[in-house]
Amino acid sequence: MSEAAGAQPVTAALLVIGDEILSGRTKDKNIGHIAERLTEIGIDLKQVRVVPDEEDEIVSALNALRARYDYVFTTGGIGPTHDDITADAVAKAFGVPIDVDPRARAMLLEYIPEADLNAARLRMARIPEGSELIVNSVSKAPGFRIGNVHVMAGVPRIMHAMLEAIIPTLRTGTPMLSRTVLANAKEGDIATPLAEIARRFPDVIIGSYPFMSDDGPNTNLVVRSRSPERLALVGDLVEEMVAHRQGA
Amino acid sequence: MSEAAGAQPVTAALLVIGDEILSGRTKDKNIGHIAERLTEIGIDLKQVRVVPDEEDEIVSALNALRARYDYVFTTGGIGPTHDDITADAVAKAFGVPIDVDPRARAMLLEYIPEADLNAARLRMARIPEGSELIVNSVSKAPGFRIGNVHVMAGVPRIMHAMLEAIIPTLRTGTPMLSRTVLANAKEGDIATPLAEIARRFPDVIIGSYPFMSDDGPNTNLVVRSRSPERLALVGDLVEEMVAHRQGA
Repeated sequence: MSEAAGAQPVTAALLVIGDEILSGRTKDKNIGHIAERLTEIGIDLKQVRVVPDEEDEIVSALNALRARYDYVFTTGGIGPTHDDITADAVAKAFGVPIDVDPRARAMLLEYIPEADLNAARLRMARIPEGSELIVNSVSKAPGFRIGNVHVMAGVPRIMHAMLEAIIPTLRTGTPMLSRTVLANAKEGDIATPLAEIARRFPDVIIGSYPFMSDDGPNTNLVVRSRSPERLALVGDLVEEMVAHRQGA
Repeated sequence: MSEAAGAQPVTAALLVIGDEILSGRTKDKNIGHIAERLTEIGIDLKQVRVVPDEEDEIVSALNALRARYDYVFTTGGIGPTHDDITADAVAKAFGVPIDVDPRARAMLLEYIPEADLNAARLRMARIPEGSELIVNSVSKAPGFRIGNVHVMAGVPRIMHAMLEAIIPTLRTGTPMLSRTVLANAKEGDIATPLAEIARRFPDVIIGSYPFMSDDGPNTNLVVRSRSPERLALVGDLVEEMVAHRQGA
């Protein structure tokens, strides 16, 4: 697709780390939130992967994603327990040492009395060499950035705070704009004229999303473009198509 | 990890196809449901990927996953509109032709009057050569299985029906059992004795999942094993550790 003002889109991938998502025990709430916030600031989330708490899996997914996208975000696996292996896996992926970081230890001490800062809790201050810390305004134990990889907590409230701390540091693109037109029709009834519009405007993305309403099947048509003019033009055409069909 | 009765675990991956998940417009509800159902029947979901509605992305993700896991499940992209490209991408991944399948066309006619079976709707009967159809008890347009890949709809209600139709056909393993112990503690307070239990029983998986309760931070400890005996043994030890700590 062509880009408004010729700007390169900024791309990202998300790596969700955790057995509990893959077993279904915990229902992920982070993918949708991160997707929405990145879209708002003009970063295109291009891929999500969910992998188990296994070092080889984390390392290979991380290396595949960080080579391909401008940014990678990870969630999960940075707590104090034995199953929290994300920081070590990230260090391994980057081939750097990992040890207790004095800055991270100081952050923990803002929240945890020194007498309670046991060996397990100190695990949360283990940070791969060369990382910048990501402030955690909720419970202090920081995330970190190394290269183009941002490592965040899995607990949604903490992840939200970390993501907001990261966002001002990111290179962003022209946000993708969208306009939704309710079709008041089944997908199959508007598919042909919709495909014709999509064919005429290959630079504009048109998605069709069926859903079940109380009155039966219905469809949301979503037009997306980085150009407000193209969005208005094609959005109007889709609206006219829907209105014409209803008037017919 | 060792397996009860030496049985090989059955593995699976899930490929979620759709721009709307990556843009955050639609919040995925399928990952959690599929993860839960597969776990119940003894299939280990080992990876999830979310990719956009782009043929190359679907083909490469599908080929990577189907080579590595016993089963692959996909959701999304099998409707009648121009952005529904999953069936074509799957045919391309397998290197087989794709055309309107008479069995699939007959299924559509159970739901759609022949006069309404336009070219767009007939797209839903395009099935890669050599596939078996997956019955859709909700709206008839079928999914399909080719090789170890099961292609399902993205609309949750339809996906649920297709998954239930598929399940009796799958090879299943010994289900992973789990037992949850509420720690009534912050993760950092139980991390050391928990790690000690985990170290002693490497064949049993122990996860620690912090959460915010109304009374402050708390933690769920989840013990998982395919062996009821090992689950009972290690679950009891974790419970004793928690009780001992509370009594202390």
